Amino acid sequence: MDVIALRREFHRYPELGFREFRTAGRVVEILTSLGYAVQWGFEVMEESTRQDVPADAEIDAAYQEAAGAGVPAHVLEKMRRGLTGVVAVLRGKREGPVLAFRFDMDALPVEESRDADHLPAREEFRSQIAGRMHACAHDGHTAIGLALAHHLAGGDFAGTLKLIFQPAEEGVCGGALSLIEKGVADDVDRMFCLHLMANMQVGEVYASTRYLASAKMIAEFFGTPAHAGGAPQKGNNALLGAASALLAMHALPPYPGQETRVNVGTLTAGTAQNIIPAYALMSLETRAKSREVNDDLVRRVEQIMQGSAQMYGLRYAMRTTGEATTYEADPALVELVQEEAHLAGFKDIHACYDSSVSEDGPFFIRHVQQRGGQGSFISVGTGMEEAHHTTRFDICEEVLPLAVELLRRLAVRILR
Amino acid sequence: MDVIALRREFHRYPELGFREFRTAGRVVEILTSLGYAVQWGFEVMEESTRQDVPADAEIDAAYQEAAGAGVPAHVLEKMRRGLTGVVAVLRGKREGPVLAFRFDMDALPVEESRDADHLPAREEFRSQIAGRMHACAHDGHTAIGLALAHHLAGGDFAGTLKLIFQPAEEGVCGGALSLIEKGVADDVDRMFCLHLMANMQVGEVYASTRYLASAKMIAEFFGTPAHAGGAPQKGNNALLGAASALLAMHALPPYPGQETRVNVGTLTAGTAQNIIPAYALMSLETRAKSREVNDDLVRRVEQIMQGSAQMYGLRYAMRTTGEATTYEADPALVELVQEEAHLAGFKDIHACYDSSVSEDGPFFIRHVQQRGGQGSFISVGTGMEEAHHTTRFDICEEVLPLAVELLRRLAVRILR
Amino acid sequence: MDVIALRREFHRYPELGFREFRTAGRVVEILTSLGYAVQWGFEVMEESTRQDVPADAEIDAAYQEAAGAGVPAHVLEKMRRGLTGVVAVLRGKREGPVLAFRFDMDALPVEESRDADHLPAREEFRSQIAGRMHACAHDGHTAIGLALAHHLAGGDFAGTLKLIFQPAEEGVCGGALSLIEKGVADDVDRMFCLHLMANMQVGEVYASTRYLASAKMIAEFFGTPAHAGGAPQKGNNALLGAASALLAMHALPPYPGQETRVNVGTLTAGTAQNIIPAYALMSLETRAKSREVNDDLVRRVEQIMQGSAQMYGLRYAMRTTGEATTYEADPALVELVQEEAHLAGFKDIHACYDSSVSEDGPFFIRHVQQRGGQGSFISVGTGMEEAHHTTRFDICEEVLPLAVELLRRLAVRILR
Amino acid sequence: MDVIALRREFHRYPELGFREFRTAGRVVEILTSLGYAVQWGFEVMEESTRQDVPADAEIDAAYQEAAGAGVPAHVLEKMRRGLTGVVAVLRGKREGPVLAFRFDMDALPVEESRDADHLPAREEFRSQIAGRMHACAHDGHTAIGLALAHHLAGGDFAGTLKLIFQPAEEGVCGGALSLIEKGVADDVDRMFCLHLMANMQVGEVYASTRYLASAKMIAEFFGTPAHAGGAPQKGNNALLGAASALLAMHALPPYPGQETRVNVGTLTAGTAQNIIPAYALMSLETRAKSREVNDDLVRRVEQIMQGSAQMYGLRYAMRTTGEATTYEADPALVELVQEEAHLAGFKDIHACYDSSVSEDGPFFIRHVQQRGGQGSFISVGTGMEEAHHTTRFDICEEVLPLAVELLRRLAVRILR
Repeated sequence: MDVIALRREFHRYPELGFREFRTAGRVVEILTSLGYAVQWGFEVMEESTRQDVPADAEIDAAYQEAAGAGVPAHVLEKMRRGLTGVVAVLRGKREGPVLAFRFDMDALPVEESRDADHLPAREEFRSQIAGRMHACAHDGHTAIGLALAHHLAGGDFAGTLKLIFQPAEEGVCGGALSLIEKGVADDVDRMFCLHLMANMQVGEVYASTRYLASAKMIAEFFGTPAHAGGAPQKGNNALLGAASALLAMHALPPYPGQETRVNVGTLTAGTAQNIIPAYALMSLETRAKSREVNDDLVRRVEQIMQGSAQMYGLRYAMRTTGEATTYEADPALVELVQEEAHLAGFKDIHACYDSSVSEDGPFFIRHVQQRGGQGSFISVGTGMEEAHHTTRFDICEEVLPLAVELLRRLAVRILR
Repeated sequence: MDVIALRREFHRYPELGFREFRTAGRVVEILTSLGYAVQWGFEVMEESTRQDVPADAEIDAAYQEAAGAGVPAHVLEKMRRGLTGVVAVLRGKREGPVLAFRFDMDALPVEESRDADHLPAREEFRSQIAGRMHACAHDGHTAIGLALAHHLAGGDFAGTLKLIFQPAEEGVCGGALSLIEKGVADDVDRMFCLHLMANMQVGEVYASTRYLASAKMIAEFFGTPAHAGGAPQKGNNALLGAASALLAMHALPPYPGQETRVNVGTLTAGTAQNIIPAYALMSLETRAKSREVNDDLVRRVEQIMQGSAQMYGLRYAMRTTGEATTYEADPALVELVQEEAHLAGFKDIHACYDSSVSEDGPFFIRHVQQRGGQGSFISVGTGMEEAHHTTRFDICEEVLPLAVELLRRLAVRILR
Repeated sequence: MDVIALRREFHRYPELGFREFRTAGRVVEILTSLGYAVQWGFEVMEESTRQDVPADAEIDAAYQEAAGAGVPAHVLEKMRRGLTGVVAVLRGKREGPVLAFRFDMDALPVEESRDADHLPAREEFRSQIAGRMHACAHDGHTAIGLALAHHLAGGDFAGTLKLIFQPAEEGVCGGALSLIEKGVADDVDRMFCLHLMANMQVGEVYASTRYLASAKMIAEFFGTPAHAGGAPQKGNNALLGAASALLAMHALPPYPGQETRVNVGTLTAGTAQNIIPAYALMSLETRAKSREVNDDLVRRVEQIMQGSAQMYGLRYAMRTTGEATTYEADPALVELVQEEAHLAGFKDIHACYDSSVSEDGPFFIRHVQQRGGQGSFISVGTGMEEAHHTTRFDICEEVLPLAVELLRRLAVRILR
Repeated sequence: MDVIALRREFHRYPELGFREFRTAGRVVEILTSLGYAVQWGFEVMEESTRQDVPADAEIDAAYQEAAGAGVPAHVLEKMRRGLTGVVAVLRGKREGPVLAFRFDMDALPVEESRDADHLPAREEFRSQIAGRMHACAHDGHTAIGLALAHHLAGGDFAGTLKLIFQPAEEGVCGGALSLIEKGVADDVDRMFCLHLMANMQVGEVYASTRYLASAKMIAEFFGTPAHAGGAPQKGNNALLGAASALLAMHALPPYPGQETRVNVGTLTAGTAQNIIPAYALMSLETRAKSREVNDDLVRRVEQIMQGSAQMYGLRYAMRTTGEATTYEADPALVELVQEEAHLAGFKDIHACYDSSVSEDGPFFIRHVQQRGGQGSFISVGTGMEEAHHTTRFDICEEVLPLAVELLRRLAVRILR
């Protein structure tokens, strides 16, 4: 099984969160053919735990797209309503612990570059879907997971191997939580997540990764419309409320050592040029190194919503649409990863990377740790300079077999 | 011809600007049957003069809707691409001046009330189209125009009667200008526009109306996206730029005696919670009593765009999507309207109403005046309290025959 | 008595509100010498009614300045604490009504121009006091009042003449109210105020003047200081609160036809670059044509203070430091002023001027009207272009005898 | 020499930056009596290098205060114009390196607490000067320096001891730079600075301290005044400019890992409620871990000034009034401090403290390092909870002899 060919296949057909029907269908197909016990869809995901779920029409469109691409009906049916997770289990020949790896599968609403020096363009595996792109390496993650499944397919180990293919990591809107809530990580003793990282060299690896806690929110202002020429004083201007609020949110003070962030990512307000805007909708996020500080930011964001509503005579509403947590890697695993990374051929090996983004993988690790297990989140360099989520993001593909080898060695070591 | 029945017919099928296919089709049908020389579509409108034209798909959808409702193909074809104006001419039996009346036909994107005490609901002529409504009395204007055509159909007068049915008055985005540019007002000697007004009693009339000059604009900021957690400092935040700009625009100082207004009516910005917004689009308007002051406001709005772009490292663009001008009514016509209003049965007659909204009718009057003619814009009370553009807007229908009689008397007086 | 010479004398020594010791001393001196019954200081002013009173040290400094300039101690003593009003009464030889004129005496904190074409500089009666200037013609008003007193000194009329010389009109902080509260206008039957106006020609006069209602306020935010480097998140930033609030105040919507105004005139906040500002003080004003709309603006300003405090975790306080009201002139007086203006030699005579500034003279007129009397506020053109309150403000002095003649004729007419 | 008694003496008479005449006078007196070669005033400071120097009147007042307190004229005279630095040199009996210690002497504009549980209040050495306080432990630093001088007074060592008593550390406005520019650190081989730290325990010490780079700035907007009622549209509002600018400055994005800070610490704007504010003055600061990022923040602050000026039709000006740099401690010195701290009796010894404030001590160390020497900045815990710069700041005085012993041991070790 050629991990690079697999990555290119997934790269061609990027799918957004809770709509990874085609990708998941292919994952089910391969894992089944390798002899794994595969469950997917409603068997492995709790529907109600998801947040920020796309509209039914969008899910249906993706579903039809996958059906049209040949994903069998019996595979698709279990995933109706966007339950696109897959879990494969292989019991070894001897007793032993349960070891799980998580791989995420979703892509991003980014238009991929057509530049001649962009490898997917030059080598003709560029995204076939306008406005969607694997700009965060999840195509690579999925391919690594399948290649790992291939290497370990014989089951010649002690204990149980569990491979979790997760939808909807982007936006941390419940892809991980809906799998956890269904119980797929309840029996796991050792848990690894992995991410390929731009701005680290090929051969560079961090045995653990700290992520920022984060909250994603929708915040709304409700005012009163009025004719902007005839009676502007009768309006309560929701857009002015949003402008004051978002400036204040971005002006929240930094918390020393906490890498705090606030971003109002979108705003939509108003109906027409000649009407005082009576409605404004913002989507925003906060981040911090600690959950407590992130909670404090959320509290201050709500305080700003209240105050800005008061200033302009508005009502407001706020709700959470996603969240990410923090965890601390187990030192024993960190040491083990470093040792095996050396043997796998990595040259530049570190204990911990402090990321300034957020992930929902830590929910898996925290869950396993709370039940007595251990976990770590590994970061693997891909030797490229273009940032994640940009139109020219790419990976040096030579990292793919290297990452597979590291995970394979970890599995053999732990399941021995 | 029952002006009230006609009004109710139009009320049932409201159509938005540059999409009044069904309404215009019915206007063509009636005027033709009355013996008027009728031209419409590309015959009477200059396509390029329009601003803020709907997308082709929206125009096509309305076109198909009208075709489905039975508007004949030979009528519709001339209106393709949204050229929905109609001009009817009737030459009298003797020589005389050219007298023109303008009526507007477009509706608004407002959902009509279902309240039992809302006449159109009770009498079952409520809008049949979800989310669209004749909430500015243009249904009444169109009905008045057709009833007037009926009364004068014999042509027993001196000179020429010209009835102009205009699309797209709302948003002052070129409905009037595209007709004027095509020359339909070039030969006019006397020009009247008319508007039915809430908050004036039935029997109340103003022989002239002053409107505010206005400009409608689209303003855009272009920044740089960046990951809001990983590299926020690499972004150039278009939404912050828009927030600063719109607060500054609303804070522009009042000009004494000028009834200045600025409204940022809509804002759309950003793509996702975790991305620094790289794009923001605002639609906005300015108003003032004089064109010069309105031009000054537009200049200051652009200065704010420039400055806010500079603050946040953005580029900006601005374009005008609509405009309204001012005019001064000719005293001779004002006096004449007052006299005939008295005879027509109006009880509360005034010389001039200072409106705080904008209209594109003044473009017609200004054009006629610049060529040596005269004009005035008449405001007629409808005895209702609900404001224009609201979900419960309505008119006392008894005003309809009263308005028809006023216009009929004016025609007979001028064309004698 | 040369009204021009008197004006130049007052022009040389401008004094700010509640500190007009030297001016008032001279007024007392002249009026006493003319045989009027003169009262001043605590005899004519209620101390507690004043707002925004200068600090004791500033009042004392002005007091000492006046003492040094030779104002007699017995005159000054009654004015201690800044009670610088003067009221002169002359009973006529016959029974008749009480007629009052109000003249204001205070100057402004403006540095007077030294330009060669600025008359006071060329003719060497420029302000002798750095940073203070009669830039609003009150020097002219005071001179007119004294010249009028001179002309009528014989008392050859029916009824009573009352001349009120008022301090502290600028800032409308209680100069008028403290005289009214003491009762000086209680017996008045006819009341006139007068203002010399730039931007009107010599010979131009308005028999009445409408002013805007206004409120002057102090608004404070109280936050929490914190080290801006070490613990910025522990601060509650009063300056951010003030910035959001003042932008929102300036963005309050215009009220159609009301000439609404909001101005945050000053802001002082913070203690040092490295401390989160814990205090902010704003002084601001609102204006509108009607008292009700002005009250509504004040309510909205307070709503903004509340909301902005809530946004940033601050406390706030607000208090009024000045106010101006509106009045409607009595038509009988307006007609009478127009007639006498014609006889006095004015060429361009109007009924009413709509001013866009505020005055506390209307408090006198409203008070007299509420007790059954009549009043009007006269505006007299001075034929200059430089705006009031600017460094090059001046008047054409030929207007001075013209204004005296108008007031003299009014007195003779009313007191006959 | 009792270091605690000395500290209490300095605590009673706090003096602000470039006005430490009495403190410096006492330092000169003691050091001279101990046999050091002492230079001060213009002998050790370059006048032109200072920034944000107080007004002459303030310097003179402090000068007179010191003269009144008995500081001899010959001592004071060299310090005229606020050159209040003192440098003492003692040559040892043998050849050896030059070792320098820096101590800062200035106090803060804070009113000291009178709480009974505040030691200086209870023990009656509270600040004798209203509104000034040693709220940052510089009284302790100065006392430590003098006690150290006492211990080493015999000169029984190899090399040269140089004790630098620096004015004006607060605000990093050139206290250090003016000494360096004069050359006092040119011959130094080993350089230590020291700060007593709240929120660290007595017995806790950090052998080196990283500070944030910082810039302190004054930023001004120049607009056009106008009457806020009569002609607000003629004004160019500097206060609106400042409000928009400061919100944008506080909304500058965080730089990952850089502990970036922006604070607009003060704002003063406008002249009166009824005048459009024509001038605004802000003092502000930026901070970051690296000089490059701090420079980038300064660039963005200026970009915001430019843009906000453009928005409101203003001019702007910016100038730097202070700056702090970064340095990296020499590992050899860090190790040496740790060893001697252990011997001196410290219990909790660390290599490096990451401070989130700024200091100008790093200028000394960077200067010495650039000439081939070594340096470090030591942080010593004082076991108190009240934050620096607050009204109840204090130190556990038992730390004073402990700190003296550490420095003494370092001197003996290095100068052996």
